[in-house]
Amino acid sequence: MSTYVLVHGAWHTGRELAPVAVLIEAAGHKVFTPTIKGNGAKDAKTVGLTEAIGSIVDYMIVTDLRDVVLVGHSYGGMVITGVADTLPDRIRRLVYWNAFVPNSGESLIDMLPPQFVQLFATMAAERGDGSVVLPFPIWREAFINDADLDTAERAYGVLNPHPLRTLTDKISLKVNPAEMTVGKSYVNCTEDTSMPHQYPWHPRLSQKLGLFRLIQVPGSHELCFSNPARLAHALMDAGRD
Amino acid sequence: MSTYVLVHGAWHTGRELAPVAVLIEAAGHKVFTPTIKGNGAKDAKTVGLTEAIGSIVDYMIVTDLRDVVLVGHSYGGMVITGVADTLPDRIRRLVYWNAFVPNSGESLIDMLPPQFVQLFATMAAERGDGSVVLPFPIWREAFINDADLDTAERAYGVLNPHPLRTLTDKISLKVNPAEMTVGKSYVNCTEDTSMPHQYPWHPRLSQKLGLFRLIQVPGSHELCFSNPARLAHALMDAGRD
Amino acid sequence: MSTYVLVHGAWHTGRELAPVAVLIEAAGHKVFTPTIKGNGAKDAKTVGLTEAIGSIVDYMIVTDLRDVVLVGHSYGGMVITGVADTLPDRIRRLVYWNAFVPNSGESLIDMLPPQFVQLFATMAAERGDGSVVLPFPIWREAFINDADLDTAERAYGVLNPHPLRTLTDKISLKVNPAEMTVGKSYVNCTEDTSMPHQYPWHPRLSQKLGLFRLIQVPGSHELCFSNPARLAHALMDAGRD
Repeated sequence: MSTYVLVHGAWHTGRELAPVAVLIEAAGHKVFTPTIKGNGAKDAKTVGLTEAIGSIVDYMIVTDLRDVVLVGHSYGGMVITGVADTLPDRIRRLVYWNAFVPNSGESLIDMLPPQFVQLFATMAAERGDGSVVLPFPIWREAFINDADLDTAERAYGVLNPHPLRTLTDKISLKVNPAEMTVGKSYVNCTEDTSMPHQYPWHPRLSQKLGLFRLIQVPGSHELCFSNPARLAHALMDAGRD
Repeated sequence: MSTYVLVHGAWHTGRELAPVAVLIEAAGHKVFTPTIKGNGAKDAKTVGLTEAIGSIVDYMIVTDLRDVVLVGHSYGGMVITGVADTLPDRIRRLVYWNAFVPNSGESLIDMLPPQFVQLFATMAAERGDGSVVLPFPIWREAFINDADLDTAERAYGVLNPHPLRTLTDKISLKVNPAEMTVGKSYVNCTEDTSMPHQYPWHPRLSQKLGLFRLIQVPGSHELCFSNPARLAHALMDAGRD
Repeated sequence: MSTYVLVHGAWHTGRELAPVAVLIEAAGHKVFTPTIKGNGAKDAKTVGLTEAIGSIVDYMIVTDLRDVVLVGHSYGGMVITGVADTLPDRIRRLVYWNAFVPNSGESLIDMLPPQFVQLFATMAAERGDGSVVLPFPIWREAFINDADLDTAERAYGVLNPHPLRTLTDKISLKVNPAEMTVGKSYVNCTEDTSMPHQYPWHPRLSQKLGLFRLIQVPGSHELCFSNPARLAHALMDAGRD
């Protein structure tokens, strides 16, 4: 049985992954769902990427987690890449779930289409506290297209403003993902349209892993809300040896 | 509960969508399946696109349909786009199901590969009444690849010759689909090979909708015959708010 | 009811297809699973493509098989193409299952990415008996990504070294696949990453068939091990009239 650490995406906290964690635990694994610094209820929205990664590094050391299947969703892909670079000996396998895969020197927005970069810049300027949010119509149609309206609204209600600096800071790595010797998997939800079609998650980002295991599953970017059981199953197929 | 209007594709009539309609009605909705002018039993095959669109506009007015989820299949995408442009206040959401999405000034054949344009021209010249038909081998292998032979033959038996002018006439719109403010969905059957792979339905045509909801479902172009239940479910996932 | 001949891929023998054959037989068909010359327990690893194809031609003549649904997996696509060219009157339908589709004058390695060509050349030089094998990490992550480790290891254990000449010899055909008048289907496992994404099985190779029937099914390149029932179902959907 394995130890899973599930690292959430932008606008989320670890709490939203609890329904997935419960199902992975039911299969006999240990599961942890920390919240990245910058997404906690009392966190400043001026947090940068180094602090965000550092918070999960600290969590793994303090909790003394070893031999970890480290899962990152979306923005969480930035974070798990940084954690794996810092604590390579504690990782059994990296699992990217519709997640960004950075090489050293890249920021998340380097992997975004221009319209999102523009939207975030405008929004951050308006909000003034360093954070960005997602407009509901984009969330409903392009992020959680596979859920009913009630699920989409409830999930939207628990999102938190996301610190823009974690998206614009460039990551610094000793080793790029393709050269990391740990096992690597990519989980691709096949109806994920959060990125426009010219900027697909797979294979555009997955191929940066070098040799990796592909797991595909029907669903939107937010399968954690629309079908936690299907997601849990996919993460275990991705996370096993 | 919603009001669905299902608009059939070329060579079809509304009758072929009855098995799908029954299943959507069973979920509590009202469903209408009009036949486009030019595909009715007694219709001339010289009908053009304006008359075709006009027949569904008239149907919606005479039947006094409002707040409609308007679904178009294949060629039906031309028709629902024209109807939405004419009666925007009566539409709640547009659902394109492996359907053409025209901008103003485009005809359906502008979105077809050259081999189909050629095939239709030759065929229309031979038939001489303004209509085109589909050869059975293309129908069986590329349109209804997911059905057994008996289903493929029975479905082929109810097809009607299609008025070519509805495919060659250019549509005239006040507003292109991307600028329409109504909700929009695209249902993509993942084994639809009716268009060759260089001319995919999604994302080539779906992206012309601007912000839209993607629903994908296993099946061929003719899922209405091969699995009406699966199609009905997908249309409802696409059609809800 | 039909007669199926299942032709295995590189590193395999007909024995590994027995669980699939049993399920097709249970649906009322006759199924044969010959082993291609070069993959048998006592075969020299210097066998070339002509001998490989000839061994299945001989098998079909000796066993007096007619009206055959001829299925080829991966490298088996080379073999069934050659068999169909030699014995066109005995074939009812060709089914390519994540298989190579050659035109006259092409070898299998002409359809491979450069990294594989390089890997095979290096490996053959080291082994010295004319054969190549697959490294386990590539097998586990890119060929059988949908199975658990135990299944991946057991399957790896029954693989046999493959004669390189069958991959480098160019095929000679009287008729290219697109011009063959027999029915043709392509079964595409949607999580097959044995070929890198720039070199997809479908549509890159499937389109060489001309008019063909597409059947897609979730699974890796080695669905025969990970889910024989799902594969058997897909092959029958592909193989029926």
